Amino acid sequence: MKPDVERRYVITLSCPDRTGIVARIAGFLAAAGGWIVEAGYHSQVPSHSDPDTGWFFTRQVVRADSLPFDVDELRARFAEVAAELGGEATWTVADTGVRKRAVLLVSKEPHCLHDLLGRVAAGELPVRLEAVIGNHETLADIVRAHGVPFHHIPFPAPDDPHRKAGRLEAFDKIRALVEGHDPDAIVLARFMQVLPAHLCEEWVGRAINIHHSFLPSFAGARPYHQAYARGVKLIGATCHYVTSDLDAGPIIEQDVIRVDHGDTTGDMVRRGRDIERLVLSRGLRWHLEDRVLVHGNKTVVFR
Amino acid sequence: MKPDVERRYVITLSCPDRTGIVARIAGFLAAAGGWIVEAGYHSQVPSHSDPDTGWFFTRQVVRADSLPFDVDELRARFAEVAAELGGEATWTVADTGVRKRAVLLVSKEPHCLHDLLGRVAAGELPVRLEAVIGNHETLADIVRAHGVPFHHIPFPAPDDPHRKAGRLEAFDKIRALVEGHDPDAIVLARFMQVLPAHLCEEWVGRAINIHHSFLPSFAGARPYHQAYARGVKLIGATCHYVTSDLDAGPIIEQDVIRVDHGDTTGDMVRRGRDIERLVLSRGLRWHLEDRVLVHGNKTVVFR
Amino acid sequence: MKPDVERRYVITLSCPDRTGIVARIAGFLAAAGGWIVEAGYHSQVPSHSDPDTGWFFTRQVVRADSLPFDVDELRARFAEVAAELGGEATWTVADTGVRKRAVLLVSKEPHCLHDLLGRVAAGELPVRLEAVIGNHETLADIVRAHGVPFHHIPFPAPDDPHRKAGRLEAFDKIRALVEGHDPDAIVLARFMQVLPAHLCEEWVGRAINIHHSFLPSFAGARPYHQAYARGVKLIGATCHYVTSDLDAGPIIEQDVIRVDHGDTTGDMVRRGRDIERLVLSRGLRWHLEDRVLVHGNKTVVFR
Amino acid sequence: MKPDVERRYVITLSCPDRTGIVARIAGFLAAAGGWIVEAGYHSQVPSHSDPDTGWFFTRQVVRADSLPFDVDELRARFAEVAAELGGEATWTVADTGVRKRAVLLVSKEPHCLHDLLGRVAAGELPVRLEAVIGNHETLADIVRAHGVPFHHIPFPAPDDPHRKAGRLEAFDKIRALVEGHDPDAIVLARFMQVLPAHLCEEWVGRAINIHHSFLPSFAGARPYHQAYARGVKLIGATCHYVTSDLDAGPIIEQDVIRVDHGDTTGDMVRRGRDIERLVLSRGLRWHLEDRVLVHGNKTVVFR
Repeated sequence: MKPDVERRYVITLSCPDRTGIVARIAGFLAAAGGWIVEAGYHSQVPSHSDPDTGWFFTRQVVRADSLPFDVDELRARFAEVAAELGGEATWTVADTGVRKRAVLLVSKEPHCLHDLLGRVAAGELPVRLEAVIGNHETLADIVRAHGVPFHHIPFPAPDDPHRKAGRLEAFDKIRALVEGHDPDAIVLARFMQVLPAHLCEEWVGRAINIHHSFLPSFAGARPYHQAYARGVKLIGATCHYVTSDLDAGPIIEQDVIRVDHGDTTGDMVRRGRDIERLVLSRGLRWHLEDRVLVHGNKTVVFR
Repeated sequence: MKPDVERRYVITLSCPDRTGIVARIAGFLAAAGGWIVEAGYHSQVPSHSDPDTGWFFTRQVVRADSLPFDVDELRARFAEVAAELGGEATWTVADTGVRKRAVLLVSKEPHCLHDLLGRVAAGELPVRLEAVIGNHETLADIVRAHGVPFHHIPFPAPDDPHRKAGRLEAFDKIRALVEGHDPDAIVLARFMQVLPAHLCEEWVGRAINIHHSFLPSFAGARPYHQAYARGVKLIGATCHYVTSDLDAGPIIEQDVIRVDHGDTTGDMVRRGRDIERLVLSRGLRWHLEDRVLVHGNKTVVFR
Repeated sequence: MKPDVERRYVITLSCPDRTGIVARIAGFLAAAGGWIVEAGYHSQVPSHSDPDTGWFFTRQVVRADSLPFDVDELRARFAEVAAELGGEATWTVADTGVRKRAVLLVSKEPHCLHDLLGRVAAGELPVRLEAVIGNHETLADIVRAHGVPFHHIPFPAPDDPHRKAGRLEAFDKIRALVEGHDPDAIVLARFMQVLPAHLCEEWVGRAINIHHSFLPSFAGARPYHQAYARGVKLIGATCHYVTSDLDAGPIIEQDVIRVDHGDTTGDMVRRGRDIERLVLSRGLRWHLEDRVLVHGNKTVVFR
Repeated sequence: MKPDVERRYVITLSCPDRTGIVARIAGFLAAAGGWIVEAGYHSQVPSHSDPDTGWFFTRQVVRADSLPFDVDELRARFAEVAAELGGEATWTVADTGVRKRAVLLVSKEPHCLHDLLGRVAAGELPVRLEAVIGNHETLADIVRAHGVPFHHIPFPAPDDPHRKAGRLEAFDKIRALVEGHDPDAIVLARFMQVLPAHLCEEWVGRAINIHHSFLPSFAGARPYHQAYARGVKLIGATCHYVTSDLDAGPIIEQDVIRVDHGDTTGDMVRRGRDIERLVLSRGLRWHLEDRVLVHGNKTVVFR
């Protein structure tokens, strides 16, 4: 059996830093015979304003067959360990034997959707696509060709007199569809409607957006046009958690590509897609593999 | 009308370098009222062994509506200009109003195929996919879902006593299918059978391969395993024209991605796919846009 | 004789686009027997708001020994060609046989200065360093060890009651020193004083700054601290022409480097230096080789 | 006091993998009150041919002031811990309060030397340059300007009848000079003489070379000329430990830069220098910070 595809338990924990945390966790796992195949640690250096307050983060991957108990028992026992580390500790235990679930939100732009469908079909992303929801029908056919349900939830036109109410109604329908799947990830794959604040809160830590600029530059609308106007020599994309503060949530991943004076905004749109695809798929993978720990408005990513 | 999608004529020419070539071509176009929207020139520095022998390359893009004649007339007139530049000159004139055609050859690996299908569906690649030919049926469904014909040409198994004859027979069928479309590009999108020499010659300048290493390192089989064994810190991919010399044809494009000690060969295979997709799609785009001029075993790429 | 180090004339021109410009320039050079070794052209696509207004840019490099006249005669004759192209045309003719001159402004940060001194000593940059001016004496010794004059012009302390006047006085001294050399480039190599508006204007197109962020993100003070606070996954540097609008002048070159959660602001400062060095040296080289044409607040860079 | 510049102890260990190693080490440090500020772990996946044999690597950084004993006592106690892990375990304990020492070997190429001198002067590299040894005198002045001793050890000319003996004699002198400093790093900063096998062995794990290609491509002489001839689209550099197998030792770091058809071999030489500087300085830093663990012909680099 290939060692890299076997069943594993993935533990994450973050808490205020102090001496002995690693020993406590490692000791717990060793006592149970746990075989650690990946271990990431990060101690955030305390700030100068408050030098006594550092923060500790870890991600541990254990071979399931090395433990004499199942994942529920692991959770119960690890809860005791975490409790010793103080009330501020947050932790998760995931089981790679249970496939994660995602729902995608799309509009008309096809490239991120095509890319994710292709990666799932190729077995590259550890996720089951439960459904794709679009405010346009443009992308329905390709989604269904991949055997994934597509739901069309139209949004009111910009000049609709009842636009505000219509939007909330549409988002209520989306919310109901999404909740029905209880997804681990809600991916805004170039979805061109701004989520209302209450959904941002409800989906905090699960809603992932791809923005087509190297944030914080060029937030908001038409970032490639902004980039063209400023004459930058690189354009980028940013994958981040959605918060009610537009394009300002915790950044998971970013990348850039070189452009020059010969690139029109049309060229930037086209070439930027290559970066959007890569950055979204990397960010989503890390999220699904429990590699991303959010702290304040920043992320620790154990790659 | 958007200026960047209008009809254009694309002229390429290469010949021994001498004074006045640019003036001759530019003068010809100016006299006809040609509006040049892109112009690339390259003078290859003469070698030290033979300092008198340089070579000249150019690619010119002209707005079709700026010329008082059609593309056939342009070809006829440009032929006269080229003739003045000597018998070694080679040139092409393409019309962006006539869509180029491609045939893809695949095996079981899906990622490059998915990527190309997605790009064509999204209107990102200026090409019509005429057909996909596979030596396995694995990828038939997704191809047909995109409305593209899929042909299955099985190859003899490695232990088939008539393997050699069977292979040639299979390649004869492929050849017949390919020729039927007279394609501008024959793309080996992770096609795992080595082309026989006579097909390499017949398709010279049209057959494009993606090799999953940064050539000339790790030519041949299992390049990611070779890379893992050597302990390199970057892995790459190479898009090149196929010649009868395996993995040694003129290179169109290459790129790399960082790996580290934590990456298994399985991780390299997965992460390398991102580079393979990008490098193949870039190389193919440049080929389709007549940006690639081959000279000896090297390419001039006007990006 | 090595062909790539021989004497050359470098012509640049920009003007409103129209048919026949390339033919006019190429024809002029061909008529004189000029051997073109590098030629770059760029037609800026007209904007949608004003589709009739495109702009044309070119850079031509001619072997000096291929022309039957000297650079002054070339200038005189090319002036006539340019005049035909209309009053808005701007052009330059440089002679690589005449070494360009630069003056550097520095403060205490040594890395860009060390890098430029090393490159000049290694013959990598086509420039003569006329002088280095510092508002601190920290870097005097290494400058003098390279045989370059160092001038110390102290600036008033932040709490000096006559700070404003003292600053202007210091800048007057700097201005006098700089003008004495009539430099082609005035390089702010991590010079930590903001140039007064009148010097920005006087030195327009010659004063080059390196800013330690990927602009337009994190303009102003302490960009690495801003980057750390935002949690970006890449940090960058920007080489740009100085204008009176702080950190907002035409961008010549940018690049980035990956950081992660483990990088403190101190790490970012250290790692960012690698990018600052590269970006400044590339931008300066292109400026010295007349590869950079400014148009509005953007640049065309013929690489 | 800034937390990131305080005194620290750096522990590295590698040994056959088994359950409980992390717990043993972390438990040891926790029991002594050790505050871990950085911790890297790597479990090398067992090979398919021998699935029971994995290998374990770790690097731990502890605040010196958090331990109740000094570095000698730490070494004595850690030796006991390591002994429990079996006879194959190798380990080191370094004290950042003791500055590491380096000797550089150079020829005529100045760029890597200039870069390292600049970095040391700027306080960017945690090392004391004990001496620079050159087989030419070209670089003596700049070395001495930085206050570092320069030793000139001439080598016999290629046509010297006693060349072989002369080379060995010269290397004996170099060996004596180097040993006198007992350096932690012997850096071949574009030193153009091949080390004899006995020095490779004597300096194993301490001698670091920069090769100007992306190995394993273009090993040996004139790699940029080889790259030009093959028409690759990226050129690179490799920092590796020296072994008696030329250009084939364990790779510490590599990077690449894009080139195109317009780049002559001269351009490649110049542009490659930027990558050589970066790659060598990164590799050397990681070596000095005990981030590089060698295993077979590969490295684990805890960044």
